[in-house]
Amino acid sequence: MDEIEVVEVAEIETEPSVLVEGLPGVGHVGKLVAEHLVEEFESRLVRRIYSHHFPPQCAVDEDGTTELTSAELYELDADGVEMLVLTGDHQSQTIDGHYKITEALLDTVTEAGVERVYALGGVATGELVEEYGVVGAANDEALVEEVAELGVEFGEGEPEGGIVGVSGLLLGMGERRGVEGVCLMGETSGYLVDPKSAQAVLEVLTDALGFDVDTEELEDRAEEMEEVVKRLEEMNQEPGGMGSFPADDDLRYIG
Amino acid sequence: MDEIEVVEVAEIETEPSVLVEGLPGVGHVGKLVAEHLVEEFESRLVRRIYSHHFPPQCAVDEDGTTELTSAELYELDADGVEMLVLTGDHQSQTIDGHYKITEALLDTVTEAGVERVYALGGVATGELVEEYGVVGAANDEALVEEVAELGVEFGEGEPEGGIVGVSGLLLGMGERRGVEGVCLMGETSGYLVDPKSAQAVLEVLTDALGFDVDTEELEDRAEEMEEVVKRLEEMNQEPGGMGSFPADDDLRYIG
Amino acid sequence: MDEIEVVEVAEIETEPSVLVEGLPGVGHVGKLVAEHLVEEFESRLVRRIYSHHFPPQCAVDEDGTTELTSAELYELDADGVEMLVLTGDHQSQTIDGHYKITEALLDTVTEAGVERVYALGGVATGELVEEYGVVGAANDEALVEEVAELGVEFGEGEPEGGIVGVSGLLLGMGERRGVEGVCLMGETSGYLVDPKSAQAVLEVLTDALGFDVDTEELEDRAEEMEEVVKRLEEMNQEPGGMGSFPADDDLRYIG
Amino acid sequence: MDEIEVVEVAEIETEPSVLVEGLPGVGHVGKLVAEHLVEEFESRLVRRIYSHHFPPQCAVDEDGTTELTSAELYELDADGVEMLVLTGDHQSQTIDGHYKITEALLDTVTEAGVERVYALGGVATGELVEEYGVVGAANDEALVEEVAELGVEFGEGEPEGGIVGVSGLLLGMGERRGVEGVCLMGETSGYLVDPKSAQAVLEVLTDALGFDVDTEELEDRAEEMEEVVKRLEEMNQEPGGMGSFPADDDLRYIG
Repeated sequence: MDEIEVVEVAEIETEPSVLVEGLPGVGHVGKLVAEHLVEEFESRLVRRIYSHHFPPQCAVDEDGTTELTSAELYELDADGVEMLVLTGDHQSQTIDGHYKITEALLDTVTEAGVERVYALGGVATGELVEEYGVVGAANDEALVEEVAELGVEFGEGEPEGGIVGVSGLLLGMGERRGVEGVCLMGETSGYLVDPKSAQAVLEVLTDALGFDVDTEELEDRAEEMEEVVKRLEEMNQEPGGMGSFPADDDLRYIG
Repeated sequence: MDEIEVVEVAEIETEPSVLVEGLPGVGHVGKLVAEHLVEEFESRLVRRIYSHHFPPQCAVDEDGTTELTSAELYELDADGVEMLVLTGDHQSQTIDGHYKITEALLDTVTEAGVERVYALGGVATGELVEEYGVVGAANDEALVEEVAELGVEFGEGEPEGGIVGVSGLLLGMGERRGVEGVCLMGETSGYLVDPKSAQAVLEVLTDALGFDVDTEELEDRAEEMEEVVKRLEEMNQEPGGMGSFPADDDLRYIG
Repeated sequence: MDEIEVVEVAEIETEPSVLVEGLPGVGHVGKLVAEHLVEEFESRLVRRIYSHHFPPQCAVDEDGTTELTSAELYELDADGVEMLVLTGDHQSQTIDGHYKITEALLDTVTEAGVERVYALGGVATGELVEEYGVVGAANDEALVEEVAELGVEFGEGEPEGGIVGVSGLLLGMGERRGVEGVCLMGETSGYLVDPKSAQAVLEVLTDALGFDVDTEELEDRAEEMEEVVKRLEEMNQEPGGMGSFPADDDLRYIG
Repeated sequence: MDEIEVVEVAEIETEPSVLVEGLPGVGHVGKLVAEHLVEEFESRLVRRIYSHHFPPQCAVDEDGTTELTSAELYELDADGVEMLVLTGDHQSQTIDGHYKITEALLDTVTEAGVERVYALGGVATGELVEEYGVVGAANDEALVEEVAELGVEFGEGEPEGGIVGVSGLLLGMGERRGVEGVCLMGETSGYLVDPKSAQAVLEVLTDALGFDVDTEELEDRAEEMEEVVKRLEEMNQEPGGMGSFPADDDLRYIG
């Protein structure tokens, strides 16, 4: 097995000009949106990316079978819009792995005709979010203008720490190769898996690409999360409660 | 010395179709079983795997001689069943090392005729175990069915975090090379070296492969561990005791 | 993208014999000076250094556009003194990256004619500084003598821990290639971004190279920092104050 | 600069059959002995080993000049015994670096005729040592017997955690290349630089190799350390004292 291996699971049959990326990250926002697309539309797994830079493990499926850690590239036709969607359970565990995996990914998707990347993620606000805004960044000025018209907040150097991981590199390395890149980051507390933030990002994405998608599944998950949050707040107000919310790292990705 | 070096200590003389792997891990369950096999049957050390990814050190034997860190591959005939057994004192210290060591191991054992791997380990329950169940996973559906008949619990995505290290990669990477892989994980608290859990795993393994083995040694070690646990519980209940059990990371691998 | 990539953004048009290096470090002293030079003189970005060893991310500019992490090499004519200036937002994230980035940098600047390097930084005193001394080191005895005449403090093995990162390697690796190297380290508490310390270093640098530069901008930033320090000290003396200053790692790089 | 670079500073003029290694480690015992030999006898620096695996920094000498991090190999004639001595300020910062540096070192010294290595270090007892014993290990049974006659304690698997770093690898990797290796470890608390432990190790070494050496310098340093320890103990017994000794990691390598 090579350091990075892009395995062809199936031929890419459509002519996708867009890649949507949603790997795990803040509030799991990007991953929620990417997985939602894969589930809502008829999607086909076309590539698996294996790498020495992913955690050295296999996942165990519900039926007891195992799957070597990988990132998955799906092909789907979203209501007329052909696209590739990348998702997976893990980011690279090493610094150079992020670069190498992104490079391999860009090789793969540009060969398939992709000219623009939508990298999806969350931006942590540190407090429970009331109105779910979407913050954007793009690797080209014209692109900033184009996407700003969709109600995305741009500029003032947000997010301050930059965009980390494959999302950030898709824009940064994409620019050097002439691939347009937009990053859409849903505002989220940063403490919990956040399907509401995912809905906000998905809305911008559907506007940008011009397709419709059922969001019931995300709404259901959002309601479940609201229940969790409510319970946590109650626990918090009881005598002997945690005093501040959230008090425990373990709560971060309840979901 | 190369990054990975598989040194031939002796020729493989039998025709093993099975590899049993038991490196250190949760409760040292896998290692206990693998070492038990090596001790109970007439076994021959056939390969040493050295690697830049193992801790940079040598062990000191009881007679004062040293041994460079390695994983050891033994050949043995378990009551008519010819097998290779991998054990050792360390896992890879790096992420890519796990992949590279597993690759080298698969190269070595498939060349020797191995077609199926039993990767042994423990799964932490977080509390003292009353009944020692064995959780399984396999890299093929038919294999899941076959092993489920031996009383192994499969499915519901357990263990949740997947199977980490060489055990997980033997299944994940093995699948890509056509090597059947079963992982047998003994339930164990996760706090102590657990010979009882090892006995439970060994029982499944002997059923699966159809051989008998004396388990007195493991039973003796299990009794010793029970003594240790009892003493810890008593200390815990004394005034000024630890209040919760176990209170100290250092207790984790008493044994 | 290669492990290290030095991209030519523009041709180097002058004949610089000096490199001034100011990457992030103690008190951000070196970076403040390097950026000040780039801003005060007409400077041209001539090279970007990208690397797998920099954090895998892109920065987001004020207008919402992104920039892949890099170190930037500028060309400028400081009042008649032609020089290259290296600055950037990040140091290497890996040990070997420091060596490889320094090697690539030395290749680039020696090819452009550079014969001497001024590596700028801060040296932490652990307490608020009253008089801003500059500590020096050089990779050649004659050079120590030359720079000592400018009022720089040399010797007694200061700084005790050596000079870490690209600054240290420019001197150490430069020596092996026949490149003269001087390190100028402004004394600074180590707790805050320190424009006053940067002024002290800049003063030595202008003396050494024989040019003048307006320092108003640094003075303004120094005043702002003094306000911050004053407020922190007041907070500290209030009932319920922090008791010691600074109490919090987060204060370290307020600025 | 390559990953590992062994630079010839001077030709090796004698015919050393022995390497003495003393890099930093527990109680700095090995380093103290190695440096003592280099200082007491007429020694010549013959090789510098540079590496991407050493900390990326330069040291600053007392005169203000810098020195890129390296390990140093000296040639000396100890009262008729020709030997090479390796010392330096740092161990490898990476796992594979230990292996690669040891490999390069073995290449260098075997080419010079070395057939046996004495790797020196300390073994932490966790409490202040009254009688300074020396624990040994060797990569060959006959060698264990030979050295045991010098009063070195062998066996019972001590030290339990094995021998870590270049010392351990010199024995482990040396064995594979036919180089005899003895490790001599002075008992030391582990909390302080320990010249007394170094004296004990030096005594065994001089017995083993058959030469005499003045130890006044080490005795002086030992007396200084005793003063430090006494003061710490007094501080400890004062009202408001630390309650246990030593209370602070920072005390570990006072000296």
